[in-house]
Amino acid sequence: MALIIQKYGGTSVADIEKIKGVALRVKNTRKNSNDVVVVLSAMGSETDRLLDMAKAITDQPDQREQDVLVSTGEQVSVSLLAIALKSLGIDATSFLGHQIKIQTDDFYGKARILKIDPENMERELNQGKVLIIAGFQGVDHGGNITTLGRGGSDTSAVAIAAALNADLCEIYTDVEGVFTTDPNICSDAKKLEKISYEEMLEMASLGARVLQTRSVQFAKKYQVPIHVRSTFQDSQGTLVTKEENMESVIVSGVAYNKDEAKITVTKIPDKPGIASRLFTPISEANIVVDMIIQNVSTDGLTDLTFTVPKADFNKALELVRITAAEINAREVLADPNIAKVSIIGTGMRSHSSVASSMFTALANEGINIMMISTSEIKISCVIKEKYTELAVRVLHDAFGLGEKT
Amino acid sequence: MALIIQKYGGTSVADIEKIKGVALRVKNTRKNSNDVVVVLSAMGSETDRLLDMAKAITDQPDQREQDVLVSTGEQVSVSLLAIALKSLGIDATSFLGHQIKIQTDDFYGKARILKIDPENMERELNQGKVLIIAGFQGVDHGGNITTLGRGGSDTSAVAIAAALNADLCEIYTDVEGVFTTDPNICSDAKKLEKISYEEMLEMASLGARVLQTRSVQFAKKYQVPIHVRSTFQDSQGTLVTKEENMESVIVSGVAYNKDEAKITVTKIPDKPGIASRLFTPISEANIVVDMIIQNVSTDGLTDLTFTVPKADFNKALELVRITAAEINAREVLADPNIAKVSIIGTGMRSHSSVASSMFTALANEGINIMMISTSEIKISCVIKEKYTELAVRVLHDAFGLGEKT
Repeated sequence: MALIIQKYGGTSVADIEKIKGVALRVKNTRKNSNDVVVVLSAMGSETDRLLDMAKAITDQPDQREQDVLVSTGEQVSVSLLAIALKSLGIDATSFLGHQIKIQTDDFYGKARILKIDPENMERELNQGKVLIIAGFQGVDHGGNITTLGRGGSDTSAVAIAAALNADLCEIYTDVEGVFTTDPNICSDAKKLEKISYEEMLEMASLGARVLQTRSVQFAKKYQVPIHVRSTFQDSQGTLVTKEENMESVIVSGVAYNKDEAKITVTKIPDKPGIASRLFTPISEANIVVDMIIQNVSTDGLTDLTFTVPKADFNKALELVRITAAEINAREVLADPNIAKVSIIGTGMRSHSSVASSMFTALANEGINIMMISTSEIKISCVIKEKYTELAVRVLHDAFGLGEKT
Repeated sequence: MALIIQKYGGTSVADIEKIKGVALRVKNTRKNSNDVVVVLSAMGSETDRLLDMAKAITDQPDQREQDVLVSTGEQVSVSLLAIALKSLGIDATSFLGHQIKIQTDDFYGKARILKIDPENMERELNQGKVLIIAGFQGVDHGGNITTLGRGGSDTSAVAIAAALNADLCEIYTDVEGVFTTDPNICSDAKKLEKISYEEMLEMASLGARVLQTRSVQFAKKYQVPIHVRSTFQDSQGTLVTKEENMESVIVSGVAYNKDEAKITVTKIPDKPGIASRLFTPISEANIVVDMIIQNVSTDGLTDLTFTVPKADFNKALELVRITAAEINAREVLADPNIAKVSIIGTGMRSHSSVASSMFTALANEGINIMMISTSEIKISCVIKEKYTELAVRVLHDAFGLGEKT
């Protein structure tokens, strides 16, 4: 007997038949006398439907009210699943963010969870109930409804698992697990049995969108084991857990991201305060900068390159041009047609040859590397966007990640 | 400057354009430095859409969960209206039943309001805000969401008006007001400027479905003046208020109801306990009996006739047949093809000729009266269903209610 948290995403509860299917799966889990807490997303594209209504009124909907609006999506799905479970004879009760109570700050639309008291949930579990909890939502100190931002239901599930000290947090989705790379690019991409939190974080933030990044950070912090698996088949998925139990593979996966653009400012004075002057306006415009590269200077002048999301490219460029003029930089170069390919693996910490193998593999195909950035468990190269798929395949092969190798 | 409660029904907020229209109307009301509290229903047929989803899972959805489900309808409309008002520069905030807080009992699906503390609302009003409150919903002592049953938003509005001691409760709907009878039957039906709570109660429960009966009872109890008017034009509607301020018209309106069926049990022993034996099983089956008529007995035997909603006719008949056999009644007669026509007016209390005028008018058209029931301000006759429209027109003429008379 264990305490299992199950989170089902929007595609898993997209219609009434799928909700009935989830009810059967919950019933089965219950059979082995497990305690079960279910966390749900909104049905299919319901969140988008609701946001579209708000946008039809104004371009800038009030954030507090938008949270009241979109939180109805999860309210509908939890009540429907509770109805389905009750009709199967399972004692289930739905709970909303303000009922359970998932305390957040008051940053509407992107609130962060501050606290979840386990008492409410434990009392209900002790009565033998299955708890169906609305994901994505919480309540601030003033009793206002908040939402956690896109993909927030993953975070809800992991936070609830942490609060209850659950044995396992299962994340049900429409893919079988985490793969060595995008199966649409490499047909021999392999499902990973296990992956560490750290690797998963790099995979997720680099575009392998299976789990929301914040939820993995949360899971890492509270050591919640996550099992990512498919709602639509019974096979094992991928276990995301602590590193120590894993065999030390050198490279676990290849990720890519086509969603960035790069901006270079050339010949800027290499003195304190310049980087701050460049990036403060960008940060104030809520633009998230990803890679930043500055090489050693020659003649007291240096070049600085960074990447931003494509959606923020024009805005960032405008801001940088203003600062560049103020600090007498020579010019601002910009390129939105780039991609980032990355290899990820905890094993690379102790293997000095990984970087050179990566560069060689790309060079062999004539792919020029425009930027390089490394962390303990990741090496990322920025290349021309048109080479993305080729680079991913070459790297997947080079590190022997395929199904048949 | 006054405190005005405005309630908008489902047709008034059926789509985004209509919601924008309501926002403009609220803004206009605000202009005259009035304090405004808005109570909303769900958009158009949203409540039905939600109920259909529950029914697609099971015939008997869990009532608690169904309330969680359907209460999202009002949550969507209040947040959208708040977004629309904010975009017009009006400081508006939405509130749900559990936020404001509308305390109810825990009879899910048909909860009754126990208490509304005015403090929460007054604090927000004192900050100069327009309050947008979700109608139809409340919260029980355990913090569970409840709903008030169909048409419950009218009751929410009147209860809030009573709690705040508001100057006026405006009920916006898709008709211009309360008419002397159904304009579909009498083309010269006239809009009433005023009507008493008592008359409105008789009109409402008899099928002139403009205001929910419970809301009128509430308004009468707390002396809340109601202005029933159209969302889609600016003309004055009908004021529902205390009787004293009204000129004493004899008959205010003609109502009808085709939704009942009658059952007669003949030759039953005229002794204590028989009526109780007949009606207890019916009441236990949650069937609401409307008219009950028992004439004086001859030979210690009497006949008893009553009406029930057509939807409950078969069930009621079945129950009555069992009891009739037990008490040795002669036979059970049943007729679902009946209608009830009623004349209503506080003035008839002091006019003895009203009843005979009604019977004469019907007799002149050869319409046979099958049952008669009277109250202080109402006389109802049960007739064959096919005569309904004819009877309504004849009575409307007989009491001079038309536009041109």
